[in-house]
Amino acid sequence: MLLEAMYHVPRDKWAYAYNPSTIHLRVRTKRNDVEYVTALTGDKYDWDGTYREIQLEKAASDSMFDYWEAAVKPKFKRLSYIFRVTAGSENVFLADNGIHHEAPYPTGGYYEFSYIHEIDVFKVPEWAKEAVFYQIMTERFANGNPDLNPEGIHSWGGKPELDNYFGGDLQGVLNHLDDLVTLGVNAIYFTPLFQANSYHKYDTVDYKKVDPHFGDNDMLKKVAEACHLRGIRVMLDAVFNHCSEDFPPFQDILKNGKNSKYVDWFHINEFPVGIKHGIPSYDTFGFYGNMPKFNTANPEVKEYLLDVAEYWIKEIKLDGWRLDVANEVDNHFWRDFRKVVKAANPEAYIVGEVWSDSLTWLMGDQFDSVMNYPFADKVLEFFCGSMDGYNFANEMGTLIMRYPQQTNEVIFNMLCSHDTPRLLSRCGEDKRRLKLSVVFLFTYIGTPCIFYGDEVGIRGEGDPDCRKCMEWDPAKQDRELYDFYRLMIDLRKSNEALRKGRFRFLKADHNDPCIVYERMDDNLHFTVWMNNTPEGRTLSHPMETKDWRDALTEEPVTPTDGVMNIKLDPYGYRILYRQLDPL
Amino acid sequence: MLLEAMYHVPRDKWAYAYNPSTIHLRVRTKRNDVEYVTALTGDKYDWDGTYREIQLEKAASDSMFDYWEAAVKPKFKRLSYIFRVTAGSENVFLADNGIHHEAPYPTGGYYEFSYIHEIDVFKVPEWAKEAVFYQIMTERFANGNPDLNPEGIHSWGGKPELDNYFGGDLQGVLNHLDDLVTLGVNAIYFTPLFQANSYHKYDTVDYKKVDPHFGDNDMLKKVAEACHLRGIRVMLDAVFNHCSEDFPPFQDILKNGKNSKYVDWFHINEFPVGIKHGIPSYDTFGFYGNMPKFNTANPEVKEYLLDVAEYWIKEIKLDGWRLDVANEVDNHFWRDFRKVVKAANPEAYIVGEVWSDSLTWLMGDQFDSVMNYPFADKVLEFFCGSMDGYNFANEMGTLIMRYPQQTNEVIFNMLCSHDTPRLLSRCGEDKRRLKLSVVFLFTYIGTPCIFYGDEVGIRGEGDPDCRKCMEWDPAKQDRELYDFYRLMIDLRKSNEALRKGRFRFLKADHNDPCIVYERMDDNLHFTVWMNNTPEGRTLSHPMETKDWRDALTEEPVTPTDGVMNIKLDPYGYRILYRQLDPL
Repeated sequence: MLLEAMYHVPRDKWAYAYNPSTIHLRVRTKRNDVEYVTALTGDKYDWDGTYREIQLEKAASDSMFDYWEAAVKPKFKRLSYIFRVTAGSENVFLADNGIHHEAPYPTGGYYEFSYIHEIDVFKVPEWAKEAVFYQIMTERFANGNPDLNPEGIHSWGGKPELDNYFGGDLQGVLNHLDDLVTLGVNAIYFTPLFQANSYHKYDTVDYKKVDPHFGDNDMLKKVAEACHLRGIRVMLDAVFNHCSEDFPPFQDILKNGKNSKYVDWFHINEFPVGIKHGIPSYDTFGFYGNMPKFNTANPEVKEYLLDVAEYWIKEIKLDGWRLDVANEVDNHFWRDFRKVVKAANPEAYIVGEVWSDSLTWLMGDQFDSVMNYPFADKVLEFFCGSMDGYNFANEMGTLIMRYPQQTNEVIFNMLCSHDTPRLLSRCGEDKRRLKLSVVFLFTYIGTPCIFYGDEVGIRGEGDPDCRKCMEWDPAKQDRELYDFYRLMIDLRKSNEALRKGRFRFLKADHNDPCIVYERMDDNLHFTVWMNNTPEGRTLSHPMETKDWRDALTEEPVTPTDGVMNIKLDPYGYRILYRQLDPL
Repeated sequence: MLLEAMYHVPRDKWAYAYNPSTIHLRVRTKRNDVEYVTALTGDKYDWDGTYREIQLEKAASDSMFDYWEAAVKPKFKRLSYIFRVTAGSENVFLADNGIHHEAPYPTGGYYEFSYIHEIDVFKVPEWAKEAVFYQIMTERFANGNPDLNPEGIHSWGGKPELDNYFGGDLQGVLNHLDDLVTLGVNAIYFTPLFQANSYHKYDTVDYKKVDPHFGDNDMLKKVAEACHLRGIRVMLDAVFNHCSEDFPPFQDILKNGKNSKYVDWFHINEFPVGIKHGIPSYDTFGFYGNMPKFNTANPEVKEYLLDVAEYWIKEIKLDGWRLDVANEVDNHFWRDFRKVVKAANPEAYIVGEVWSDSLTWLMGDQFDSVMNYPFADKVLEFFCGSMDGYNFANEMGTLIMRYPQQTNEVIFNMLCSHDTPRLLSRCGEDKRRLKLSVVFLFTYIGTPCIFYGDEVGIRGEGDPDCRKCMEWDPAKQDRELYDFYRLMIDLRKSNEALRKGRFRFLKADHNDPCIVYERMDDNLHFTVWMNNTPEGRTLSHPMETKDWRDALTEEPVTPTDGVMNIKLDPYGYRILYRQLDPL
């Protein structure tokens, strides 16, 4: 056994409370190197009286490692433990004080999960496990009230530039809410809506005022109410890392310099405040002088922004906040943010924009979820690039083992956004490949999100090209694609197994981009078959039971001699399911 | 290169801000497997303009791994990075999205330390880096006021039982403060002083009242003032996990059951409150019914205990809190505790009692330090058991890589306490071995603590035997040992290099329990030579410079032909030093 590959620490994603009575333990070993991992557990104050051995299951693998997992329910909320790792007749024991060849005497040097405190247990909103999100950039979604048009708008459907306007507004969203109901989504993520100098509104001037180009506060209230009436949750974009240079406190600094009472609201490195050789004399988002970065450690700033966070929750019964540039704001701020937000709405969903490893923020005290860009990258590398099934399964294994299960259940999975090229373009405009990636999105673990217009075939390279106007002309919409999206959304929403069931790859081979995987809960068992190649293929996998049906057509599908053979078109897929016997 | 052994995550002890301008990065590789580790760093918003390569140094090793470290000062507080790991002509690149054979294009998939926020930087008190602690159990230290004697006390120096009293009190401590000044210690850790039913006072009845057996609140104030006058810091024991069954709110529950207004102050699992088959119907410390566990998530309880924490800081200018059973109290509580304590005294030292991996509490938001029991175990296993130098260096390497440098600089290192056998007894009553371990304690990284009486040769097995009365009769004290302790304390206090200098093993070999190590700052270079065997030994090590002196005698010690040869008695040691040229 390769001892150097074994890993466990008694904290973060390796040992955490899943709920007030359950601890999840994870262990890493070299791939295909060991047969069993067993947790030897007990209460340190009564080891013999509480001793239990618990077998870990292989929960995921990546290119180098197997990951083992078990859920443990300690009798008295306290858990001491070590792991016995077994290959053949060889055993080693992983403990807090090192790796041993004999089990160390309990419980000195054992790992400890000292006590499950309910207040420390990471809780995520249940509704987010049921949600199908739809991301809207209001300026580009629909123009419902031409009276609000900015001056000099371009005609709807024109070429998006870095700074042009097309006239989308909240009335436009309201007008199309029933279309979203028809599509089947039940949650909207709005990019920023508050008064700002740009069409995208990521440079906020007034945090408590809806941008006049979009409408007014009453209009937002009306939209939120209309959403809630239709069972649609609403998430807004919290741009708390920075504001606009026109945000009044920053203007005050520009005017009064060192004597401004807002001088500690920002990180001013030098007076006079200005930009020298392209570098602002104050901290900013990137190096953009028009987006000064807040000093969120200043209690006045914190109070101001937390008040904003609470205000909109109360004002429009907001269901969630997406946090812009979340990783560049301090952890103390986000801890207090969570307290304020969850006090105002215990079921609020908090999604950070973080592109890299985000575990720091996902331990229960800050965010519920993050935008899962690494997921998008790997899914598209597989379905729209060149990767074999083996590597794809490994990448998914890496990602699923990055975070505790709570986050995995509500991680914000999308395939593109306003900050990336459009899905269809990322797929080389091959709709078949797009569909495979969307099938995967809707049958995988996490909360899926569609970027407005992807469902009708909008193309687009990176910003600003991806931020085209929504296509409302049915003649110009790809209705076949739209129907496919509807079907997928409906499939996910109708089947809890696809939202919460166990996921497992059944086929994920070297040098073969075709995959088969399953999702299963106590009621239903799904298998998904994907031919991720330009030629026709028949995929085969042993299947003991015969009662399979096509999930989209209800047609029975039967294995032959215990083997299921599924014939697939180039880039074709098929989704099968069967009822499980009630326990 | 063994890829499975490589480890880095962009958080916790692997990537953290050491101060507001410096990020520490650490990487793990298989021992003796790679030649160089280089961080490729920059600001993601201007990669080319900020790009720097930074060589990591091998900071420590353990039995399986080398640990590499670098301090990085990003120009704009933001850092994106990957690592290039080199062995011969082979390079691999460690990034957030996996291990690569070619450097991935910047900065997608790179690790990120998004932004150094001063509020999130882990700050520990400077004075703790200068401190030499002395742990006092007041009941067993000195009887200064016989009027306070509990009924039926045993005569001073008698056999300690689980529940007998000897009459020690705060007047006794006051009477002996100048003795502590003579010894040289400059900080006292008092086990609990507040009103309780036991001699050890770990079952608090009144958190704001000094136990009448010890004196009164004014007396504690007097002791603290006398300490401060003498440059001695004072740390008290915060027993906030549990209280006594006689704590009034718990008594109220016993009396009023479900109707008690204190019912949520504890974790009551069942009414009526009581003990069935040895298991209390409420959560407790261990299974001790007389020590009910607080519900620290209850805001009333939190407010009550945080008020206690603040009260004593203000009342006696308290310098620190040692936190009893710290790992069984919730993290939310400790975060707020830190805020309250540091607001009342920004230089307060917070030391948790945690026996196992404590990183969870040592990220800057909870404790500064923990009682370093694993250090005691390994030091005594080496000097008083059987372990070779190679394994000892590995164990020290493991421990130093457990925590960020901030904690390492003030980790509470002791060789025994009221919860373990006495040092001399752990050393098989071999004073020579005891001395080696004490030399190591006083020349190693971290804040040393002496358990009262160890310095005069008190013996004792585990609790209660280790809690004997202090020996004040000079005829019965081991004065030679006492002088040795004085010397070691003075040596450490006089030489910053021994407190803050870089530590490195020079000799730590397989099958040889003799070691040589160095500590060095910009001014002084120390080498410590230890013959950890029962026979005489001469230890040799190449030394380029000739200007060495014995640190205890000032005698010059000169290498021969570039090799220093140090002749040592059985279990002997020698400490050399030399002045470094001013830069």
